[in-house]
Amino acid sequence: MIIDKLLEKIDEKRNPCVVGLDPIVEKLPPHLLTESSFTAIAEAFKVFNFAIIDAIHDLVPAIKPQMACYEKYGAAGVQAFEETVAYAKEKGLIVIGDAKRGDIGHTAKAYAEAHLGKVFTPSGRKFSTNADWLTVNPYLGKDGLDPFVKVCEEHDRGIFILVKTSNPSSGQWQDRLIDVKDDEVADFTERNIQLKDRRTELYNLVGLQVHRYAKEFRGKRGYSAIGAVVGATYPEQAATLRKLMPYSLFLVPGYGAQGGKSKDIVNCFNNDGYGAVINSSRGIIYAWETLNMPRDFARASRNAVRIMITDIQDALKDAGKWPHNWN
Amino acid sequence: MIIDKLLEKIDEKRNPCVVGLDPIVEKLPPHLLTESSFTAIAEAFKVFNFAIIDAIHDLVPAIKPQMACYEKYGAAGVQAFEETVAYAKEKGLIVIGDAKRGDIGHTAKAYAEAHLGKVFTPSGRKFSTNADWLTVNPYLGKDGLDPFVKVCEEHDRGIFILVKTSNPSSGQWQDRLIDVKDDEVADFTERNIQLKDRRTELYNLVGLQVHRYAKEFRGKRGYSAIGAVVGATYPEQAATLRKLMPYSLFLVPGYGAQGGKSKDIVNCFNNDGYGAVINSSRGIIYAWETLNMPRDFARASRNAVRIMITDIQDALKDAGKWPHNWN
Repeated sequence: MIIDKLLEKIDEKRNPCVVGLDPIVEKLPPHLLTESSFTAIAEAFKVFNFAIIDAIHDLVPAIKPQMACYEKYGAAGVQAFEETVAYAKEKGLIVIGDAKRGDIGHTAKAYAEAHLGKVFTPSGRKFSTNADWLTVNPYLGKDGLDPFVKVCEEHDRGIFILVKTSNPSSGQWQDRLIDVKDDEVADFTERNIQLKDRRTELYNLVGLQVHRYAKEFRGKRGYSAIGAVVGATYPEQAATLRKLMPYSLFLVPGYGAQGGKSKDIVNCFNNDGYGAVINSSRGIIYAWETLNMPRDFARASRNAVRIMITDIQDALKDAGKWPHNWN
Repeated sequence: MIIDKLLEKIDEKRNPCVVGLDPIVEKLPPHLLTESSFTAIAEAFKVFNFAIIDAIHDLVPAIKPQMACYEKYGAAGVQAFEETVAYAKEKGLIVIGDAKRGDIGHTAKAYAEAHLGKVFTPSGRKFSTNADWLTVNPYLGKDGLDPFVKVCEEHDRGIFILVKTSNPSSGQWQDRLIDVKDDEVADFTERNIQLKDRRTELYNLVGLQVHRYAKEFRGKRGYSAIGAVVGATYPEQAATLRKLMPYSLFLVPGYGAQGGKSKDIVNCFNNDGYGAVINSSRGIIYAWETLNMPRDFARASRNAVRIMITDIQDALKDAGKWPHNWN
C-alpha cells in the first residue's frame, strides 16, 4: 500500500521532510526565463523543478507541488504540473498534490478521479494527473469526502484532509467550540480527548471524521493513507490531534517561512517517531536567493534540505521520538 | 461593476437562471466523440459547449462551467475550460467559474489571480482563465478569503463563498451550533437573525463574514459582487441567510436533478425579485437523452432552459417577488 511505501521511503532516507515545488515567476533564477508566454513560463517551471528533483531525490521521500502555482498559467501551467508529477515518480519519489479540492458527491468523485484515480474515456479508464496523495477540503461534509476515500481504496492512493491549517486566521471557524453528539463523545472518550462541557473545536470534529476513515483503511505497519493537514504553527492543537488520529499521517505545512519551529513540530509525531511529513517550500527552493547563487539554485536547495533534515532529526532525538528503524 | 452588469443581463432576459456547463464523457452525444485521447475529449467538450452556448445565449445571463469536469482531462481539459470561458464572453455571457478554490493567504492570492485577475509574467501582468466570478471555499478563514475579495475589487470581479451547500451531508459541520462572539451578536441583531441561546449555525457565521465583505463593496443598485453559495435543497436555511446577507447574490445549485423545487427557491430572492442566480446543469445539457435526440442536443438544451425559466418566473410571480423592471 502507498502508506507503507511512504513509510519505507522515510526509513530509507531517515527523513520525514518533503519539498514543496511551488514555482513563482518572480522568484525563478532569471536565466531560466527569457520569454513571457505562458508556455515559456511553464517550460521554465519544468526546468527548475526537474533540476531540483535531480538534486534532492536521494534525500527526501516525497515532493509536494502546490497546484495554485501552476494553475496560474492555465493549461500550460497544468501541463508543467503533470510533467513534474511524472518526472518525480520516475525518480522514485512519492508525489503529494496540494490542490485542496472539495465539492459535493459526484463532483468530488470527478476531482478524485482527476488527481488520484483513472478517468473515463471511450476506450477505457486512464490515469490523468496521477499523484499519489492529494489534499482535500472538508467543508462540504462526509458525502464530499467519501468519493476521495473510495478512490484511495480502489487505486491505492492517499489523501490529507484539512483539519487545522497553518494560517493566522485558521481559527476563525476551525477553533470554534461545538456541542459533541453522543456517538462522537464515545469516540473522543476512547481516544482520551478532554471535552470542554461536552464541547470541542471544529478541528477536532473534522479530525474525528479523519480518524473514522483512517482506522478502517490501514497498511501493514498500522498507519493509514487517510491523513490530515495540521499546521506547524499550532503545536498545542497538534498534540491533541496526534492523540485523536493515531493512525493518520499528518502533512505539516508552516515550517520555516511561516514560523513553525522543529521543537514544536515534534508534537505532530507519534512516540514511535512516525506520523508526520514536514513540508518546506520557499525555504528550500528559493535558498539560492539568500546565497545569491542563481546558477546553482539546485545545489542551494540541496543544502537547504540537508539543514532542514538535520534540524528535524535533532528535534526528534531530543523529544525521544527517534524511529527504531533508523538505529 | 460586474454585479450591475449581471443584474442588467438578468433584467434584459427576465431570467435569473444560469446553465452549468459540466460535460461528462459518458453522457456526450455519441457522434461528438470518435477518439479516446484527452485532446479529442477536450475538443468534443468544446464542440458540445459552443453549440449549447449558441443555442442559449439569448436566454440566460450567465453560464457556470464546473472546473472538475475539465480538470479530469488534465491540461487538455483545462484548455477546453479556458476556451469555453472565452467563447461565452464573446457571446455576451457572464461566466461563473465553479472551482471551489480555497487556500492560505499567498496561495489563495495565486488562485484568485489565476481565475479572476492577472498573473505575473516578465513582460507584465496578463489574464489567465479570465472568468467573471468564482466559487470559493471558506474553511481556512478570513485570511484565505481576503485575497479573493481584493482581486475582485482590483479587477471588478465577483465571488460566491460556500455558505450552505446543497448536498445531503452539508450539515455535518455547516449546521453545528457555535457560541456567537460579542461583535457577531451585534451584527446578527442588526440583521434581525434570531440566535439560539446566543448560538447559531456555522453557516450563519460564514454568512455573516460574507455580509461584512458585501456591505463594503456594492454596485450602483445596492447589490454586491461578494456573494454566497446557498443550496436550493435547504429552503428554511435560505430564508434566514437571505435576511442575513441582503446585498449578496446567492448562487443556488440543487435545482432539478438534486431535488430543489422552484417554490422553495424563491426563498433565495429578496422581495425586489433579485438576489439569486439559479443553476441547472444536468437537467439542461443532457435534456437530449430523455428526448432521445443526440443530434439536436443543443435544441433540447434550449427547450429545457425555456421550461426552467417559466418555472422560476411563475414561482417568483406566485411569491410576489416579480421584479419591477420586468413589467
